Amino acid sequence: MQSSLGPIETVTLHNVLMARERIRGIASRTPLRPSLALGRDTGRAVGLKMEIMQATGAFKLRGAANCILALDPERRRSGIVAASSGNHGRAVAYVAQKLGIPSTICVSELVPPAKVAAVASLDAEVIVTGPDQDAAIAAAREIATTQGRAYICPFDDPHVIAGQGTIALEIMEDWPDVETVIVQVSGGGLAAGVAMVLKTINPEIRVIGVTMERGAAMYHSLRAGKPVHVDEVATLADGLQGGVLAENRHTFGMCQRYLDEIMLVSEDQIADAITYAFTKERLILEGAGACGIALLRDKRAAQLGQHIVAICTGDNIDPGKLLEIVGD
Amino acid sequence: MQSSLGPIETVTLHNVLMARERIRGIASRTPLRPSLALGRDTGRAVGLKMEIMQATGAFKLRGAANCILALDPERRRSGIVAASSGNHGRAVAYVAQKLGIPSTICVSELVPPAKVAAVASLDAEVIVTGPDQDAAIAAAREIATTQGRAYICPFDDPHVIAGQGTIALEIMEDWPDVETVIVQVSGGGLAAGVAMVLKTINPEIRVIGVTMERGAAMYHSLRAGKPVHVDEVATLADGLQGGVLAENRHTFGMCQRYLDEIMLVSEDQIADAITYAFTKERLILEGAGACGIALLRDKRAAQLGQHIVAICTGDNIDPGKLLEIVGD
Repeated sequence: MQSSLGPIETVTLHNVLMARERIRGIASRTPLRPSLALGRDTGRAVGLKMEIMQATGAFKLRGAANCILALDPERRRSGIVAASSGNHGRAVAYVAQKLGIPSTICVSELVPPAKVAAVASLDAEVIVTGPDQDAAIAAAREIATTQGRAYICPFDDPHVIAGQGTIALEIMEDWPDVETVIVQVSGGGLAAGVAMVLKTINPEIRVIGVTMERGAAMYHSLRAGKPVHVDEVATLADGLQGGVLAENRHTFGMCQRYLDEIMLVSEDQIADAITYAFTKERLILEGAGACGIALLRDKRAAQLGQHIVAICTGDNIDPGKLLEIVGD
Repeated sequence: MQSSLGPIETVTLHNVLMARERIRGIASRTPLRPSLALGRDTGRAVGLKMEIMQATGAFKLRGAANCILALDPERRRSGIVAASSGNHGRAVAYVAQKLGIPSTICVSELVPPAKVAAVASLDAEVIVTGPDQDAAIAAAREIATTQGRAYICPFDDPHVIAGQGTIALEIMEDWPDVETVIVQVSGGGLAAGVAMVLKTINPEIRVIGVTMERGAAMYHSLRAGKPVHVDEVATLADGLQGGVLAENRHTFGMCQRYLDEIMLVSEDQIADAITYAFTKERLILEGAGACGIALLRDKRAAQLGQHIVAICTGDNIDPGKLLEIVGD
C-alpha cells in the first residue's frame, strides 16, 4: 500500500508539537467556547471546541495541512490527490490552493453537483468516477501512482493523526483541568490524535469516542479486536460514514490503546442535537459535528464528570436539510 | 454624570494592551476566519472576525469584562448594575457570575420575557422597570447611587472602549497587511476602540463604520458635528439601536477622529446578509452582526481595497425570526 508517510511511523506528542508549528497560518487555533446552555442543562461545565471556525468549516484542515506541508517540497510541487467530496476533500483543495500546488479530488458518481462545485471552486481538478467511494479512492491511488502525485489519506496516516491531535493541545492549554473529552470516531484519525495527546499529558482524563448507531465501524472493530466491515447505511452523521480499513496501520491500534470507550447515538439524538445547537447555541452543525452534543443531551452525560469538552467538528450541512430538521 | 471610569480619561494603545491582559480567561481571543464565499464573490481576500465565539455570543463581553475587572476590588464586591437586555446585559451578568459578585440588570417593560429569562439564568437580579430603555437606564443609575454599586456603561467609557479595542490588536496580529476594516457603529464603543488601535498601529488602514439607515445616530451626529437625537425606529439591526448621548465624553470624539467614514445599509441588505451568512458561511448572525457582510455584498465593496475584515459582532437573534428571514 502506497502511503504519504514522512519518516514517522508512530505518533507522539513531539509529532503533534511539530504539526502545530507546521500548520500555523493555514489552520486556525480555535476557541473553546463555554456552553452556557449545556452548562445549565447538565449541571456541569461544558466547553465546545469550535472546529467549525476553520476556513473550510471543519477540523480536517489540520490533518490535511500537516500531511501536505510535511511532504518533500519537490514532491509537493508535483501535486496531490485525494478522494472525498466532504470535509477532507475541501481541506486538501484549500491547502493546495494556499500553497499554489495542483490538486485533484476524485469523487464518485453519487456525489451531488453542489458538492462537486464546492470543491472545484477551490481550484481543484475534480474527477467524477465510479459508482461509489471505494471506486473514487481506487482512482485517486491510480493517479498517485501514474502521475507521481502524493495521495493524501483521510485518516490512517501519522501526519494526519498528528495534525488532528493539535486540537487536544489547545484544549489542554485552555482548560488544564478538563476531566472528559468527547471525540467523534469514524476512521479514527481525529480520535487517535486527540486521545493520544490527552492521555499522554494526563492519563486521568477520560476520552470518550462518540459515533452513530447506524454504521459504527470503529465501535464494532474494537469489540471484534480487529478491523471489521460494517455496512454503510444512510445517517444524519454522514461525515462519520466509512470503514476503518482492513489494512489499518495506525488509527485502530491507537483507538484501542487510548480511547476509554465508544458511545453510540441514535438518529433522533443527532437530529435533536442539531436543533439544540441551532436554537440554544446559535451554531450550525452537520450531523457528525453535533454527536458530542447529542451525548451530552443523553442521561449518560451524568457519568462524564464535571468538566467536559465536546468537539464541534464541522458545519458541512445542506441549509435546506438543516431548515427541515430544525423546523420539525 | 456618574461614571464607572478608572483613572484613564483618554484611550491609548497602552490601555488596550492592559485590557487584553485583564480580560484573558473571561473573554476569548477569536479567530479571523477567511471567508471563501465572500472572497469568491468580491474578488478580494475577506476575513471575518468571529466575535460570535465569545461565551455570550457577542463582542460586548470584552468591554464589560475590562470595565468590571478594572474596578477597585472592594468596589467590585459591592456589586454592579447595568441597563440592557441585549448583549451588554448578558455580558455584564456573565462576568459578575464568573467573578462571584452580585449583578443587577434593569430592563424596560418592553423587553420580552425570553430575554429577561436569558439574563436571569446568568444569576443576575433582573428589574423590569419603566416604559422604555431610557427609564431602565435611569433606574440603573439610581441603584448605582443608592446602593453604592458600580454602573457599567455600555459604550461611553474608556475601559469599555479599550476592551473592544482588543479586537483590533488580534486582527493586526493575524493579518498585518489588512487594508480595510469594517466596524459596526451604534454608540461607538466598538468603533472608537477598534479604529483607534488600527490607526495608531497603521494610519494607512481604512476604517469604515457601518450602521443601518433606520436610526443612524452616530452618522447624523458626525455630520452635524455634535451628538444629535435620532428617532429610534424598528430595524433588523436592533443591536445597533440607541443614541450617542448628548453628554458624550469619549466615543463621539474618537469616531470623529479615527473613522474614515460611515456607510449605511438598508433593511433589505441586512436581511440579505443574514441569509448569506446562514447559507454560504454557515453562521447565525443577528442583524447588527451581519452589517459588515451587508456592505461587502454591496457595490461599495469595490472601493474597499484587496484585504478586508468585517466583524461578526453578535449572534443574538431569535431562531424563529432567523428561520423567517432565511426561509423567504
